Amino acid sequence: MKTFVMKEIGRVGFMEKPVPHLGPGDALVRTTRALICTSDSHTVQGGIGPRENLTLGHEAVGVVDAVGSEVKDFQPGDRVLAGAITPDWGDLASQNGYPSQSGAPLGGFKFANSKDGVFAEFFHVNDADANLARIPDGIPDAAAVYCADMLSTGFMGAENGNIPMGGTVAVLAQGPVGLMVTAGARLCGAGLVIGVESVPSRQKLAQMYGADEVVDFTKEDVVERILELTDGQGVDTAVEALGADVTFQTAVKITKPGGTISNTGYFGEGEFVRIPRVEWGVGMADKTITTGLCPGGRLRMERLLRLLETSRVDPSHMTTHEFDFDDMERAFEVADKKLEDVVKVMISF
Amino acid sequence: MKTFVMKEIGRVGFMEKPVPHLGPGDALVRTTRALICTSDSHTVQGGIGPRENLTLGHEAVGVVDAVGSEVKDFQPGDRVLAGAITPDWGDLASQNGYPSQSGAPLGGFKFANSKDGVFAEFFHVNDADANLARIPDGIPDAAAVYCADMLSTGFMGAENGNIPMGGTVAVLAQGPVGLMVTAGARLCGAGLVIGVESVPSRQKLAQMYGADEVVDFTKEDVVERILELTDGQGVDTAVEALGADVTFQTAVKITKPGGTISNTGYFGEGEFVRIPRVEWGVGMADKTITTGLCPGGRLRMERLLRLLETSRVDPSHMTTHEFDFDDMERAFEVADKKLEDVVKVMISF
Amino acid sequence: MKTFVMKEIGRVGFMEKPVPHLGPGDALVRTTRALICTSDSHTVQGGIGPRENLTLGHEAVGVVDAVGSEVKDFQPGDRVLAGAITPDWGDLASQNGYPSQSGAPLGGFKFANSKDGVFAEFFHVNDADANLARIPDGIPDAAAVYCADMLSTGFMGAENGNIPMGGTVAVLAQGPVGLMVTAGARLCGAGLVIGVESVPSRQKLAQMYGADEVVDFTKEDVVERILELTDGQGVDTAVEALGADVTFQTAVKITKPGGTISNTGYFGEGEFVRIPRVEWGVGMADKTITTGLCPGGRLRMERLLRLLETSRVDPSHMTTHEFDFDDMERAFEVADKKLEDVVKVMISF
Amino acid sequence: MKTFVMKEIGRVGFMEKPVPHLGPGDALVRTTRALICTSDSHTVQGGIGPRENLTLGHEAVGVVDAVGSEVKDFQPGDRVLAGAITPDWGDLASQNGYPSQSGAPLGGFKFANSKDGVFAEFFHVNDADANLARIPDGIPDAAAVYCADMLSTGFMGAENGNIPMGGTVAVLAQGPVGLMVTAGARLCGAGLVIGVESVPSRQKLAQMYGADEVVDFTKEDVVERILELTDGQGVDTAVEALGADVTFQTAVKITKPGGTISNTGYFGEGEFVRIPRVEWGVGMADKTITTGLCPGGRLRMERLLRLLETSRVDPSHMTTHEFDFDDMERAFEVADKKLEDVVKVMISF
Repeated sequence: MKTFVMKEIGRVGFMEKPVPHLGPGDALVRTTRALICTSDSHTVQGGIGPRENLTLGHEAVGVVDAVGSEVKDFQPGDRVLAGAITPDWGDLASQNGYPSQSGAPLGGFKFANSKDGVFAEFFHVNDADANLARIPDGIPDAAAVYCADMLSTGFMGAENGNIPMGGTVAVLAQGPVGLMVTAGARLCGAGLVIGVESVPSRQKLAQMYGADEVVDFTKEDVVERILELTDGQGVDTAVEALGADVTFQTAVKITKPGGTISNTGYFGEGEFVRIPRVEWGVGMADKTITTGLCPGGRLRMERLLRLLETSRVDPSHMTTHEFDFDDMERAFEVADKKLEDVVKVMISF
Repeated sequence: MKTFVMKEIGRVGFMEKPVPHLGPGDALVRTTRALICTSDSHTVQGGIGPRENLTLGHEAVGVVDAVGSEVKDFQPGDRVLAGAITPDWGDLASQNGYPSQSGAPLGGFKFANSKDGVFAEFFHVNDADANLARIPDGIPDAAAVYCADMLSTGFMGAENGNIPMGGTVAVLAQGPVGLMVTAGARLCGAGLVIGVESVPSRQKLAQMYGADEVVDFTKEDVVERILELTDGQGVDTAVEALGADVTFQTAVKITKPGGTISNTGYFGEGEFVRIPRVEWGVGMADKTITTGLCPGGRLRMERLLRLLETSRVDPSHMTTHEFDFDDMERAFEVADKKLEDVVKVMISF
Repeated sequence: MKTFVMKEIGRVGFMEKPVPHLGPGDALVRTTRALICTSDSHTVQGGIGPRENLTLGHEAVGVVDAVGSEVKDFQPGDRVLAGAITPDWGDLASQNGYPSQSGAPLGGFKFANSKDGVFAEFFHVNDADANLARIPDGIPDAAAVYCADMLSTGFMGAENGNIPMGGTVAVLAQGPVGLMVTAGARLCGAGLVIGVESVPSRQKLAQMYGADEVVDFTKEDVVERILELTDGQGVDTAVEALGADVTFQTAVKITKPGGTISNTGYFGEGEFVRIPRVEWGVGMADKTITTGLCPGGRLRMERLLRLLETSRVDPSHMTTHEFDFDDMERAFEVADKKLEDVVKVMISF
Repeated sequence: MKTFVMKEIGRVGFMEKPVPHLGPGDALVRTTRALICTSDSHTVQGGIGPRENLTLGHEAVGVVDAVGSEVKDFQPGDRVLAGAITPDWGDLASQNGYPSQSGAPLGGFKFANSKDGVFAEFFHVNDADANLARIPDGIPDAAAVYCADMLSTGFMGAENGNIPMGGTVAVLAQGPVGLMVTAGARLCGAGLVIGVESVPSRQKLAQMYGADEVVDFTKEDVVERILELTDGQGVDTAVEALGADVTFQTAVKITKPGGTISNTGYFGEGEFVRIPRVEWGVGMADKTITTGLCPGGRLRMERLLRLLETSRVDPSHMTTHEFDFDDMERAFEVADKKLEDVVKVMISF
C-alpha cells in the first residue's frame, strides 16, 4: 500500500509498504480522511529522535477493513474514528487514570511514533474495541476527523484548567489546538475568554470559536492588557497552547493566586521551561500547573462525536486547505512551512 | 416602609415596618426589582415552621441607600445584586467550603427565613463587602435579579453533577430552577441534555435554554425513554429539580454506574426520600448523590453577572408576569397557585 | 479438581470440576489461601439470584500454574494475589474511571458471580497482566489474601469519604470490612475515628485498628452520643459498613452539613434504602452520598501490598478461624452462621 | 510592651512598643510560647523587602487578654492558638477557596509581614472568632504552637500531593517543614515515604516521623536511588520542602507520569524556578505542579489540634533549643545561623 513517511530526520516522501498484520484485538482501517498536525513537523525535524521510514500522521478516520478474532464491537464496513492516542488500557498508568502515559511516558502516543501512522491507504489500530468509535450517520468524515486530536487536546486544555462557572480564561495562541481550547473554555462555563493571537485570520477564527476578547501581542503588552481586562486580578485559568518558554512565563504571570496554568503545548526546545519566581508567588501563591497528552479511547471519542452531533462546535472552519493523498508532498509543505495562512490541511484518500 | 409579609402560616399581606438598622459591616438597599420564588409559597405553607409577620422574598436587586462604618467597597448609589444566600464567611462551615451552611444547617439562608426578606422598599444585607455585587452597566435589573437564586441554584445543579465533557444529562422538571439547570448543563459541556417536562410552555423554554430532547412523562415512560436515548446505558448525570420522592427515584434509575444524581430540589414532604435499592446497585454501583443550597456571595454573583454580560444565557425569557409592588397580593396569588402558565413573576418597586 | 460450590439457592457442597481453560491473556492460579466473605453467604441465600453449581469464593492468593500466550509479566511459579474484582480494563466504564462497573453494573465482580470463584484447587484470572499482583517476599499468603477484598473495600470506604486532615469519622459496624474502614480512616488522616459496634471482641479489634472511641448501639443512642463526641456538629464522614437501612439512616443523621456519607455495605433487602428527609437538610444540606464496589486491578493490589510491606496495617488479627479446604463445609457453616465470635475464616489449600 | 523586631534589613533587636489597639472583631493575646521560623531569617535578610521596626514571629500560642465588642466565641483567659496565616474570610480569594491569598497574593500572611508579629508580650489577632482556636486541656502550649505553621504547612505539602492510598512519596529536605510533610504523608496513606536529607540528626527525626527510607544526597544520586526504590517508575508524589531550584528540578525528575510535584518551599532567589523540559515530558506527561501557603483559620487549627489530642503526631521532638524571651537575641542567632544542629527554637514568655 502507499504510505507517506519520514525517511529520516528532515526528509519525507511516499513509500510502498505491506498492509499491517492484525493481532487478535486489532483492526485494520481503510483511511478516508486525515489531517496534518504540527507534531508531524516536529517529528520530521527530529523532535522525538531519529526515525527511519516511519509512516507519519495520527489524525484520521476511515472504514473498518478487517478485525482480529477477539474484536467484538466492530466489523468490516463500519465508519470509524480512532483517537490520536491509542492506550493500553490494562497498563498500570491507565489503571492510575493516565492512559495517555500507558506503557511509558507519553506511551499512548503510538501512531507515527512507536508504530506507523495514518498517512497510508490503511492503518492499524490496537485494541479496537477500546480505541475505535463508530461515527454517527449525520457527521461527515471531514468533521469527525477533528476529534482525534484537535478537539481532544484542545478541550483537555480547558478541562485541566479548573475553570469556575463564569470564570475568566486566557488562551495563549490560537493555532488549531488553541482554537479548540477557546471553544472548550466556552463549553466549560467560562464567563470571559481572552484569545491571544497576532495573525488576523486566526483572530477571526478565535472570535468564531468563542473568544470574547482578542489580544494581539505584537500591539500591546499581554500581561498588562489581561490584568486590565480582569480588573487587575488576573485570570482564573491560563492555557498555554504554543509550547514556548516565553508564553509559559506569560501564563504564570497573568494567572491569579488560586488559579491554574493548564499546558497543552509541546515544548520542543531548551533544557528548561522556566517559571517566573516572583509572579509564581515565590512558590506559595496556590498557582497550580497542569499538563496532559491528548486523551484517547472510545469513550472520549464517542463523547466528542456527540458534541458534533448536537452542534456544540463545528471544527470544519479550521480546514483552510484540502489535498488528495497523491498531493501529499505539497500538502505537507504547506503545513510544515505554514504557507498561505494555513490552519489545518485536510487529506482525502 | 411598606413590606409584604407572611402574617402567619397560610396568610400573607402588606405591613408597615421601620427601615432596618445597620451594623458596621451591613448595607441597606432600596429595592428596584424582585422575583417571587416557589420557596416563598413553601414558607407561607409552613415548610420551615411558623413565622409571624416575616417579610417574604429572597431574590432582589436595588440601589445602595446606606452602608455601615466598616463597609469599604460599596457606597450609596451603587446598583447592586445580593445573593439569596448571604453567608457568614468566617464561620466554620464556610471555612470548610460550605458557606450556605454557615451558622447552622442551611444557615446562609437568612432572607425570609431567619430575618426579613426583600419584598419591601428596603432590605438589609449582612457583610455587604462579601455579599453584594455591583451590577455592570449593560445589564438591566430585570436580568440581574435572576442571578440571586435561579442561576445560582440551577447552575449549581449542573456543577455538582460532575458532567464529563460531552456527557449525557437529564434534568427532571423544567420549572425556573430546572430551566437554569438545563442552561447550566450546556455551560458545563454536556453533549446531550434531556429535559423532562409535561407543560408545553415549559417544554418550549427547555428547548430555548438548551435541551436537545424533551421527554413528557405524561406520554411516555421516562426511564425507558432515557435509556433509549442513551443506548441503554443511562445518563452520566441526572439532576432532580422538583423535590419529589418519585422524581428522585427516577433520577437514581436513569443514572449509569459511575454517574451522579445531583439534587437541587427542596423536599417538602414525607419522612423519607427513598433510593430504589436495586437500581442503586445495592449500594455498590458508584452512583453518587450530591446536594446543595444556592451558593451566595460576591464572587459567585460577579461570575454569574459576567455570564449575562458575555451573553451566555438570557434568563429574562422566564419572566411570564410583571407587577408593581402595590399589586403584590395578586402577584403572589398568580405565583402561588401557578395560574396562567406562570414561570416567574417579576415585581417592580 | 476439587471445588466448593453453591449447588442451588440454600445448598452448598464439594464438587469435582475440570481445570479451567485459559484464553490468551488469562492465568491459572493454584490456590494456597482463601477467605470466606459474608457475600458468599448472601450469594448462597439467593442475593444475586439463582445459580447452579457455581464455585464460591472471591478472596484468594496462590501460585501461577499456567499463563496464556499473550501474558507478559507473570509466569508459572509466581506467588500472586488477585483482586476480588477483576475488571475488563478496555470497557467504557473502565475508561470512565469505574472499572468495577465494567461490562455491566457491578460487572467487574466475576468470581463466584459470573464465573467460578476461588474455593477450588485452581482458579482462573482474566487479563492476568492487569489483574494479578506479585506478592513481595516478606509478606505471608495469610496476610496478602486480605488485600483482595477486605483492605480494598474497607479502605475505599474511607477514601470515598472525603475525610479532611484531622476530620471526624464514624464507622457504622465493625465487621471485617468496617474494621478495615477504621484502619483506612486512620490512613486517610482522620483526627477522630468512632467505631459503632456491640460485640465485645469486635470492639477490641476496632480499638486495635484505630478507633479512638467505640459506641455500643445497644447501650446508648448512637446519634446522640456521636453528636456529643463532635461538639454537636456531627462527623465529617460517616461510613456505612453493614448494608442495613437503619444504619444508613443513622449515617445521614450523624453527618454534618458539607459532610459525606460513604457506603460500603451491600444492601440485600427491601425495595428502598431510605434517606431521612429532615436530617438530610430537605435535600439542601450539602450532604453527599457516595458508594462503590471493591476496587480491583494490579495497581490497587500492589499499593495495598505495599501497605503491608511497610507495616501500616496488619490484617491477620481478623483471622479468628482456620480450616483446611477439606473441612470447607464446617468452615462455611461457622462463617455463615457467625458462630464462635467469628470475624474471618481462613482456608488453607 | 517588650517586642523583638527587625529594625531594618539585616538588623534585629528588642524594642518597646505600645500594646496593640483592638477593632470590634479582634483579640489581644498574651504570648506564652513561640517558635522561630526560617521565614523570620528570610524576612530579616530582605526576602519580602525592607521593613522598619517590624515585630518578628508568626508561630505562637497564648492566653486571651482582651477581645473586641463583636467577638462572640472567645473571652479573656482562654488558652488559644492562632494560625500563622490569619485570612480575611469575606475576601474574594477566600470565597474562591484560597484564604491564604486573601487581600492580595500571600495576603493572609499578616504577622511579621503586613503587621507586627508574635515575638512580643502581646499579639493582635484579626477576626478572632474565625482565626483563633481554643487549645484542649490535655495539650501543652509547647506542642500546640507547632500547629500554627509547621503542621499546617507540612501537612499541606502532603495534602496537595494527591497521594493515592499506598502510593509512593519522596520528601525533599527534612527541615521542620519537611519533617511534617513526612508525618503528613503517612497520615495521607502513603505506602512508602522516602526522606531526602544529609544531616544525621534530621535523618533520625525523619525516621521517627515516618520515613521508610532516607536518601542522603551527599552519598548517592537522588534521582537514581529513588527510581531504584520505585522499580524504575518514579514516585506518585514528590514534595519540595526546601525552596531551591535544584531541589525543584529533582522533584520533577523523580515523579512518575500522572504524579504530582507539591511545593511547600519558599523560593527566595533567582529570576526563575526551572522545570527540566524532557523529564517534564515536554509538557505532556500529566505531571501536575501544586503550591500553597500555610492554611490558617480556626477550623484548620482545631483539626490540627485534634491530631495532637489523638496522638497522631508529636511535634515536640523537633524542639532542639529552648530560650526565655529575654534571651531572644541569642535564640535568633542560633536559629538564623543554624548552629548546634538546630531544628526548632522554642521561646517561653
